[in-house]
Amino acid sequence: MNVALLAHEQFPDRAKTAVGVLRYADYDVVAVLDRDNDGSRVADHVPDVQDAPVVASMSDVDEDVDALVIGIAPIGGGFEESWRPDVRNALERGCDVYSGLHYFLEDDEEFAALAAEHGAELWDVRKPPADLGVADGVADSVDATVVTTVGTDCSVGKMTATRELYETAREQGMDAAFVATGQTGILIEGEGIPVDRVVSDFAAGAVEQMVLEAGADHDYVFVEGQASIVHPAYSGVTASIVHGSMPDHLVLCHEVGRDSVHGYDQELPPVGEFVDRFEAFAEPVADADVVGGMLNTRSVDSDDEAREAIADFADAIDAPADDPVRFDPGSVIEVIR
Amino acid sequence: MNVALLAHEQFPDRAKTAVGVLRYADYDVVAVLDRDNDGSRVADHVPDVQDAPVVASMSDVDEDVDALVIGIAPIGGGFEESWRPDVRNALERGCDVYSGLHYFLEDDEEFAALAAEHGAELWDVRKPPADLGVADGVADSVDATVVTTVGTDCSVGKMTATRELYETAREQGMDAAFVATGQTGILIEGEGIPVDRVVSDFAAGAVEQMVLEAGADHDYVFVEGQASIVHPAYSGVTASIVHGSMPDHLVLCHEVGRDSVHGYDQELPPVGEFVDRFEAFAEPVADADVVGGMLNTRSVDSDDEAREAIADFADAIDAPADDPVRFDPGSVIEVIR
Repeated sequence: MNVALLAHEQFPDRAKTAVGVLRYADYDVVAVLDRDNDGSRVADHVPDVQDAPVVASMSDVDEDVDALVIGIAPIGGGFEESWRPDVRNALERGCDVYSGLHYFLEDDEEFAALAAEHGAELWDVRKPPADLGVADGVADSVDATVVTTVGTDCSVGKMTATRELYETAREQGMDAAFVATGQTGILIEGEGIPVDRVVSDFAAGAVEQMVLEAGADHDYVFVEGQASIVHPAYSGVTASIVHGSMPDHLVLCHEVGRDSVHGYDQELPPVGEFVDRFEAFAEPVADADVVGGMLNTRSVDSDDEAREAIADFADAIDAPADDPVRFDPGSVIEVIR
Repeated sequence: MNVALLAHEQFPDRAKTAVGVLRYADYDVVAVLDRDNDGSRVADHVPDVQDAPVVASMSDVDEDVDALVIGIAPIGGGFEESWRPDVRNALERGCDVYSGLHYFLEDDEEFAALAAEHGAELWDVRKPPADLGVADGVADSVDATVVTTVGTDCSVGKMTATRELYETAREQGMDAAFVATGQTGILIEGEGIPVDRVVSDFAAGAVEQMVLEAGADHDYVFVEGQASIVHPAYSGVTASIVHGSMPDHLVLCHEVGRDSVHGYDQELPPVGEFVDRFEAFAEPVADADVVGGMLNTRSVDSDDEAREAIADFADAIDAPADDPVRFDPGSVIEVIR
């Protein structure tokens, strides 16, 4: 299936959905739309994922495209009007549009009309199912080992770390499942519930439901965490995932050099403190230890420096750590299995 | 304004909305509907609020009624079909119906049709406004002193404690505001946002918005907390309120004898631990201390025993405490002003 990824002005560093799809999804990416990087290639920016040309607009894409994927998730999740011509062009050629924005494309009159007219589908990934309920506090009743990722902030690499842990576990022959809780994970996995979009009262219940389903069929369940327990806007989402999943283990995700909350005037506590913070928070509901750490070292040039940063991180959290993209999450899988 | 309160089979101990309205709202309550207590009076059950007859159904209420208020909030917030004849009867006589349930009456075809036919209004208190957004982490920019209640569990008396603190502050001449975050508080105050019903990503933002508005006009803002940081289903709501309100002070609410999560197979940590748990949770976002405690002693018969329980609670949390209903929240107001 051919897709184009919309990532205007934000590719690759602030286009985590686009990069996640390039790295993990089963789609063939035929183009990335980024008017600031027109004429370059994906490989010029991100060397270790599938390559594709970067173009200025959807009208520059000549190949057949099955779906245009909105590959950026701005704070607030709004729709940028400057993207409208690309979405319009896609729909007019009968191409589906997948979006993880809070703004639902199917509620947009022009897009809804164009989709109907040209037989294209609008998939608002962030629209949760209607039949969710309150958590019963029973996610720990599954026989599976539940591993939930947590992080020091948004956009430090929780989805990536979870996906890498899951894929590595499967490569090692473990019967593992991936529970997607955010738009990128859902786009990659093809299913999941966007917990940040679920009514607060039902957020833990949504996670519990996914863990019960995945845990019934698999030995290991890797749950994609969201945001951070110290985040001024999104800590409620984190809380619901940690308590709703009732994990056996936590894996702490962090990005090298991140010392304040992205987009907010708030310092982060020292990274080592997060171990106690998350374990203490989880404890009344689930007796989970932070068994490992995943460090995002993309801002570090040399592998040697990256290894040093990982060693410091492992020291700080007193557990094995690695960068699952640059290196390998194997040392953390070892503790889990 | 005359209201009837629906509280079938749950009045008064599991009908916190009904009791809250009886105690604090400006409505004249002409009847409480509880088929299990038919023939008794409110005063037989709750002596210190306005009195009214308890009857079996809405058809037993002869007085003019302006609104029927659903006065119970079951776990999950569903609508009990056994209440349908009462709601139907109310609407057929042109009486409005106010509900704090997750189930929206205006989405019920029969109720919507009856309301339209008889000129009655359906007010789904739990339906949040449509224009909410992500928190900016700026609630602490108000000049007002922000006091947020937190609790060891659901239904320990946070709304009541917040309301009593607010009313006592005003009686003492302090310029105070009440920020309602749940159905009962909103029904009493006439405004507010049901945070538990807000999409997770926007829950802290909703609280921030209310604190900014109230804090612009008042010197003290009392924010009604919800649930508990240790609750397996609702901790996300608590997290969003604590971080979204960026409080100067926290007041810990608890009920005598509560040692497990209501409705769940989960023990509560010792009550003294909650001070550290809430302060540590708040700290990266707001440097708030637990400055006092509010103890619900309704299950204790004698005032002497209640005073003993309060003294123990104050010891455990190392701060002044009281039962704001049985006695007075003055000692905690003292610390805040």
